[in-house]
Amino acid sequence: SDSLQSIFDYVDAHMDTYVSQLTEAVAIKSVSGTPEFRPQTREVLEVYAKNELERLGATVRLEELGDQPGADPPMKLPPVILATLGADPAKKTVCIYGHLDVQPAELSDGWNTDPFVLTEVDGKMYGRGSTDDKGPVLAWFNVIEAYQALNIPIPINIKFCFEGMEESGSTGLEDLLKREKDTFFNDVDYICISDNYWLGKNTPCVTYGLRGICYYSVHIQCAGQDLHSGVHGGVVHEAMTDLCHIFDSLVSSDGTIKIDHINDDVAELTPEEEATYGPIDFSPSEYKEELGVTQLAHATKPKILQHRWRFPCLSIHGIEGAFYGPGDKTVIPHKIIGKFSIRLVPDMSPIKVHQLVKSHINTVHAATGSPNIVTVTPSHGAPAWVGDINDGNFTAGRNAVKRVFDKDADLTREGGSIPITLTFEEVTGKSVMLLPIGSSDDAAHSQNEKLNRSNFRNGMKVLAAYFEEVAKLAASQKK
Amino acid sequence: SDSLQSIFDYVDAHMDTYVSQLTEAVAIKSVSGTPEFRPQTREVLEVYAKNELERLGATVRLEELGDQPGADPPMKLPPVILATLGADPAKKTVCIYGHLDVQPAELSDGWNTDPFVLTEVDGKMYGRGSTDDKGPVLAWFNVIEAYQALNIPIPINIKFCFEGMEESGSTGLEDLLKREKDTFFNDVDYICISDNYWLGKNTPCVTYGLRGICYYSVHIQCAGQDLHSGVHGGVVHEAMTDLCHIFDSLVSSDGTIKIDHINDDVAELTPEEEATYGPIDFSPSEYKEELGVTQLAHATKPKILQHRWRFPCLSIHGIEGAFYGPGDKTVIPHKIIGKFSIRLVPDMSPIKVHQLVKSHINTVHAATGSPNIVTVTPSHGAPAWVGDINDGNFTAGRNAVKRVFDKDADLTREGGSIPITLTFEEVTGKSVMLLPIGSSDDAAHSQNEKLNRSNFRNGMKVLAAYFEEVAKLAASQKK
Ligand SMILES: [Zn+2]
Ligand SMILES: [Zn+2]
Ligand SMILES: [Zn+2]
Ligand SMILES: [Zn+2]
Repeated sequence: SDSLQSIFDYVDAHMDTYVSQLTEAVAIKSVSGTPEFRPQTREVLEVYAKNELERLGATVRLEELGDQPGADPPMKLPPVILATLGADPAKKTVCIYGHLDVQPAELSDGWNTDPFVLTEVDGKMYGRGSTDDKGPVLAWFNVIEAYQALNIPIPINIKFCFEGMEESGSTGLEDLLKREKDTFFNDVDYICISDNYWLGKNTPCVTYGLRGICYYSVHIQCAGQDLHSGVHGGVVHEAMTDLCHIFDSLVSSDGTIKIDHINDDVAELTPEEEATYGPIDFSPSEYKEELGVTQLAHATKPKILQHRWRFPCLSIHGIEGAFYGPGDKTVIPHKIIGKFSIRLVPDMSPIKVHQLVKSHINTVHAATGSPNIVTVTPSHGAPAWVGDINDGNFTAGRNAVKRVFDKDADLTREGGSIPITLTFEEVTGKSVMLLPIGSSDDAAHSQNEKLNRSNFRNGMKVLAAYFEEVAKLAASQKK
Repeated sequence: SDSLQSIFDYVDAHMDTYVSQLTEAVAIKSVSGTPEFRPQTREVLEVYAKNELERLGATVRLEELGDQPGADPPMKLPPVILATLGADPAKKTVCIYGHLDVQPAELSDGWNTDPFVLTEVDGKMYGRGSTDDKGPVLAWFNVIEAYQALNIPIPINIKFCFEGMEESGSTGLEDLLKREKDTFFNDVDYICISDNYWLGKNTPCVTYGLRGICYYSVHIQCAGQDLHSGVHGGVVHEAMTDLCHIFDSLVSSDGTIKIDHINDDVAELTPEEEATYGPIDFSPSEYKEELGVTQLAHATKPKILQHRWRFPCLSIHGIEGAFYGPGDKTVIPHKIIGKFSIRLVPDMSPIKVHQLVKSHINTVHAATGSPNIVTVTPSHGAPAWVGDINDGNFTAGRNAVKRVFDKDADLTREGGSIPITLTFEEVTGKSVMLLPIGSSDDAAHSQNEKLNRSNFRNGMKVLAAYFEEVAKLAASQKK
């Protein structure tokens, strides 16, 4: 439409303003995982985002979530923003979720520039939170501001849900969503989340699935204190020996999970799903190159993507309490915690996986005859999520991408887990779609996180087009 | 003899002086492993020990060992002291080895008192180096000073070899010993080292064996950088999986080493050796209690001591490069180094053990089909040492203990390794004996290291008596 083109032009013309606004947002050290930065994590919601939303005319509620569980000294959780812009019963209502907290970052971690000073080099804007998730949140603001500046009516009602604990497990959010099920979320038609990434660097995507996760801590203690392996080695049933035996029983080098019945509930690959992998813009050889691996565990594009997205996998992450430094320490670690996790896919259930894992480990350990007690503690447990790529929300998202890029969006899933996605779906009973704007190489959570200026610009256009496409659904459904 | 009794009385009368001298020595932060403390580590030799030895009338040489290998920025090794006191051809010459460097220590590590301020509580003198090895070194000085103060001729010639890198692998010492084989060490009859501990808290011992050690680093890399287990899990041959498989192939929970032929060269247990375990003052149940283990891997006193002293064992120490912190990090570590070591016993050879270990790991890893390259790097390699408990040196040591304590010394070995012991034996071709003065609970290398005032006092008496007993040997050999 002409009005959409004028929005696109407005976006193009205001990029420098958007970049300086993003600079301002990145400068707020809203690291949710670091108690020292809790004031800034509150500020980015209470002051920064609240002001921006009110400037756009939204009605803003700050929802307090109480004290952070386990924090010592006590510390309040950052508030969640629930805001409303528009309540026209003739329009669809889209709920936008995003987060304004960020991962920790220090120059000394290996950043080339100050992580809290947005620094643009060759079209890449480096800074903590640039792509995860301050850039996308500001993209929503900028699109709304463009509509208003051009006096074009915003074609949908918008509900905003912004939090400040996403990088620390979204503590308290699930309860809030459930409490607001029949109030704030009552009239939501679609949920849209822009907090993930394209599969590659060139083709935009809409994302319709996430794997779940079950994370386990395996506690083993073999003595009252760390022991010198020279003095006491040979007479102690060592905890490390027991743990390595357990770890080795979990998975083989090719990735096969060796826990009985673990694959029983994995959904069959239908021909319909199989067909979705063909058109995806993904090069196994480039991917192999990018990861720096000698040989991938699977050879073809569909197999690789399926094993990242729709088959379970098990990773051993490390050991707490063992020797981890450089050099040759001759210690028998006395109290260790082995960490591993399993990525869940439809239709695996965390509770059933917990049972299988515990029973497997108990059986394997008992067979060794070790007197050491092994305790398996599950710490996360989130099922997988998969959306319907043919419903109205995805149709709007796919059409929006097509309008901006003149090509089909890749239909992707994420191998990782964003548990709140599933909660949004459960609470609203409506379709959730992930509509990323960042590139696969944005390095979220890593050193030198960045957002490309072009992804920021085109991302805003996609979000604007998504508004229009959702509005079309309302129109077509009325006919 | 009367002269020995007067030495004993002198020691009893001067304990407060000895404690304040030890306080002075402990205050010098001679932490060899910490570059920041290298000046103090030099000082304790160049100034402190040199002055003490010269005060006693010894001729002191400071041997420079050049730059510390691998130090960046370059840093000189601390010197070694080679000193001589007496050269009477009618007397036996004993070489005394000790070290004046200490392990790192910080109050914040869990010390109850400043580790570098010797603090006596209930007869226990807490401080870094109190028992390892400044207390024993000062005990030698004090005994000599007692002889001199009482105008009793010292009945032996003494050669001192004191170093400042023992806690950091005795770098450079082995080469020096070899260089001085036919010069400084030419006329040594016996070597005596007081740098270990009693088996328990009540019965003194002489120590006639040490296990050796082979320490291994297993390097595995599976990708160019750490990967997110959600995003990439399922398509990578993970290094942790490979390492756990290798670790599990090395040893079983009961301590059995699963490397083919590893036990082929272990010396047979002779009836004569078997008989030495019976009289030893050692309680399996107290030991179990002390370690805080549920159940030891062996049940009887002889079996437990044999598995600490004269059978090999394998310990897995930890992993460098994997996740080791608290919490639930979902990382696929890309480059890891697994650490394990094997304690060697007579007649195992480090070179043969290296071959068996490498071949074992290569075979086990190849069978997995993993494309990851595994590199096994041996970092230490020291054979075991065992002395002859019936030779003159041990006779003198055992008699000295009997004179002071009126009971037989336990004949012990150490499960740990002091590689320089073997070098002394090789270079001199003479008997080495370990004659500890500290108690098993002295916590060397740990927080709250201490030396009991009573062990310090009785230890000095044993060392004095050892001088006399060695002198008797000279006398009896002349007849
Ligand atoms: Zn995010
Ligand atoms: Zn994030
Ligand atoms: Zn020592
Ligand atoms: Zn030591």
